[in-house]
Amino acid sequence: MSARNRSSRIDRWLLQKIYRAAGRPAIRLKLQNGAEVSPTDALPVASLVIPDRKTLFRLLLDPEAEFGDAYSKGRITLDGDLVSALEIFYRSMPQGEQVSWYVKLASKFVEYVQRNSLHGSRRNIHQHYDLNTDFFRLWLDPQLVYTCAYFPSPDATLEQAQLAKLDYVCRKVQLQPGERVVEAGCGWGALALHMAKNYGVTVRAFNISREQILVARRRAKELGLSHQVEFIEDDYRNISGECDAFISLGMLEHVGREHYRDLGSIMHRSLAKTGRGLLHFIGRNHPRPFSTWTRKRIFQGAYAPALSEAMQVLEPWDLSVLDVENLRPHYAKTLEHWLARFEKSSRQISEMFGPDFVRAWRLYLAGAVAAFHVGTLQLFQLVFARTARRQIPWTRAHLYTKDQNEEQETKWMHATS
Amino acid sequence: MSARNRSSRIDRWLLQKIYRAAGRPAIRLKLQNGAEVSPTDALPVASLVIPDRKTLFRLLLDPEAEFGDAYSKGRITLDGDLVSALEIFYRSMPQGEQVSWYVKLASKFVEYVQRNSLHGSRRNIHQHYDLNTDFFRLWLDPQLVYTCAYFPSPDATLEQAQLAKLDYVCRKVQLQPGERVVEAGCGWGALALHMAKNYGVTVRAFNISREQILVARRRAKELGLSHQVEFIEDDYRNISGECDAFISLGMLEHVGREHYRDLGSIMHRSLAKTGRGLLHFIGRNHPRPFSTWTRKRIFQGAYAPALSEAMQVLEPWDLSVLDVENLRPHYAKTLEHWLARFEKSSRQISEMFGPDFVRAWRLYLAGAVAAFHVGTLQLFQLVFARTARRQIPWTRAHLYTKDQNEEQETKWMHATS
Repeated sequence: MSARNRSSRIDRWLLQKIYRAAGRPAIRLKLQNGAEVSPTDALPVASLVIPDRKTLFRLLLDPEAEFGDAYSKGRITLDGDLVSALEIFYRSMPQGEQVSWYVKLASKFVEYVQRNSLHGSRRNIHQHYDLNTDFFRLWLDPQLVYTCAYFPSPDATLEQAQLAKLDYVCRKVQLQPGERVVEAGCGWGALALHMAKNYGVTVRAFNISREQILVARRRAKELGLSHQVEFIEDDYRNISGECDAFISLGMLEHVGREHYRDLGSIMHRSLAKTGRGLLHFIGRNHPRPFSTWTRKRIFQGAYAPALSEAMQVLEPWDLSVLDVENLRPHYAKTLEHWLARFEKSSRQISEMFGPDFVRAWRLYLAGAVAAFHVGTLQLFQLVFARTARRQIPWTRAHLYTKDQNEEQETKWMHATS
Repeated sequence: MSARNRSSRIDRWLLQKIYRAAGRPAIRLKLQNGAEVSPTDALPVASLVIPDRKTLFRLLLDPEAEFGDAYSKGRITLDGDLVSALEIFYRSMPQGEQVSWYVKLASKFVEYVQRNSLHGSRRNIHQHYDLNTDFFRLWLDPQLVYTCAYFPSPDATLEQAQLAKLDYVCRKVQLQPGERVVEAGCGWGALALHMAKNYGVTVRAFNISREQILVARRRAKELGLSHQVEFIEDDYRNISGECDAFISLGMLEHVGREHYRDLGSIMHRSLAKTGRGLLHFIGRNHPRPFSTWTRKRIFQGAYAPALSEAMQVLEPWDLSVLDVENLRPHYAKTLEHWLARFEKSSRQISEMFGPDFVRAWRLYLAGAVAAFHVGTLQLFQLVFARTARRQIPWTRAHLYTKDQNEEQETKWMHATS
């Protein structure tokens, strides 16, 4: 047997091993030099082209991390639709427990390095959210809402759906004029401003992303709402004073498992005797960390909890869960909108941050679309209240009544005009 | 100091100690011989009359167990409204952690004796549910639904509210004609028959209460639904075969913490690839057992889980939580109806089981009203689905649309006529 033949047999053997480890997906795996594996029972939906044996070895060791990095650097390429291919991978890949010792070790290491201390959180948040507001403007809605939208119907626009989400949240916690709201992790301020403007509440909104806080303050000024909304550049652990409602959208993912009790104690300390609140977060069906690639390149220190884990925020403080809604299909749709807009602006983004960045973020957004489609990620909206709260709505019908929607329609008109 | 004076000082000291341990409620504690403690900052809402020092000592050792037994035997009497007094006690009593070593030990002992093995479950269920159907007929609705009702509005009748609950459950799991449903713990069969009759599904309904199963079978025959609904006298652990929906109302409380994984594995084994289901159960804000009195005299082997604990049923099997609703106010109202009907029939019930039984069940029902009012108990309706299920409703609006309600109204008419 020639050296060349032996070499190609090793390549084929490695490819087969990767293919089996991935759960035999309906994807063709191709090595640039020619070796390939194809599904035997179905036509391949896409082809993955891998440059060399070094990459093959790395894929065997930590498939998610290596795939992410090699794809971002343009070394691995995909022939076919990225979202569809990722969905196939997510469906075929063995779940959780079967990951190798190497992946577990790497995962623990990343967790330690990215721990969410006061300082660590600032570093983790800065890395993603302070990128540059102009970048996010290219693919988010004009209000810059960077969390799952709520589509009253699937054909609503992203703008409508984000506005509907903001209002849905307000109605879920039944805000009343004059009440005091704390928002933990306020992004560019859209919810805080919506609450103040449409529900007559006062808001103290916290965020450790400087870039976002500066933009939010500017918008409050423009809207004449600076007297009602205070944007505070500080960590949730430093929240003080009393509030009637405690609301947090898309922050729990950045709190980290080891700090759930801290967050709960802050909520407990802040909430008035009849207080209530809402947590909106990416979650899981069962405990499982994000891939090391996601945590290294996209969301440092992030963790999406299973409900059993999220309960650690509430249970020590005798807070009652009133309502949990899984908005998974809404996040898949939101992300489809984001991904489409991102692609439209990809040239501009490449000029800002380079082509590797574009590919990494394309992979992140497409991967999230796929994960919410397939169900490896969930989106939970959880309403809670102190037991002493008596004004619990008798049913949830008020969230869906016709009048409400018409009124809502009017509000949208007003806000988008 | 005379012996008499010394004796009354000891009594007063014991009363004070009990009063403080109860968190200084707005209730007067009186010993029959005259010693008493009253709240200093409020008028007492009721007076509790305790017969002797022996009872005082026992109240100190295990307050809930002794209060329950002494009240049932007519030794402790209450001057005032029972529900209001219990609400005051529940609000003032220190929560969970501070119970004495004695109570903890007694609690563990009861848990061991009443463990929910296949045999133990039969014994536990028999003790409560096989009492005698005529007894339950005296104070439940005509369909004999012995779980929390759903009141579309607070002034709905109990009959309407139970029917609304049955239908609400069907709509939450979106039953389709021809589908196969498993019901675990079916009581006297109301939900199984409702599903078969109104949604055209086939149902296999399991129960280990012989008395209930016999009644349910008779009703199926009367309604001509025996070909669609099979009532099976067996344990949930023996459920086999495939189903499209797995539904269980008021059974999780009898499963016991140590068997949540078993229940989950049965659900996982039974559910089709796109299956879904609903669990309806009494829960808690945080882990805490029922009082030893409740477990000795009313619900042997019962445990109401916190959500973190209930998740142990679902999380090992990658089942997605789609919706959790806390119906606490509905259970308070349901229990108010039951208690009022129970009181109306108390003479008859006393003739059936004696006055101690009447007092024990009065305390159980009144205590439950108070607990759901105050918030020491919750009622969770949880909808879950396999991730492969694609027909997830886009919003929850369909549960509350006008048309639906009108259609519903017609259905009620039909069923109650």
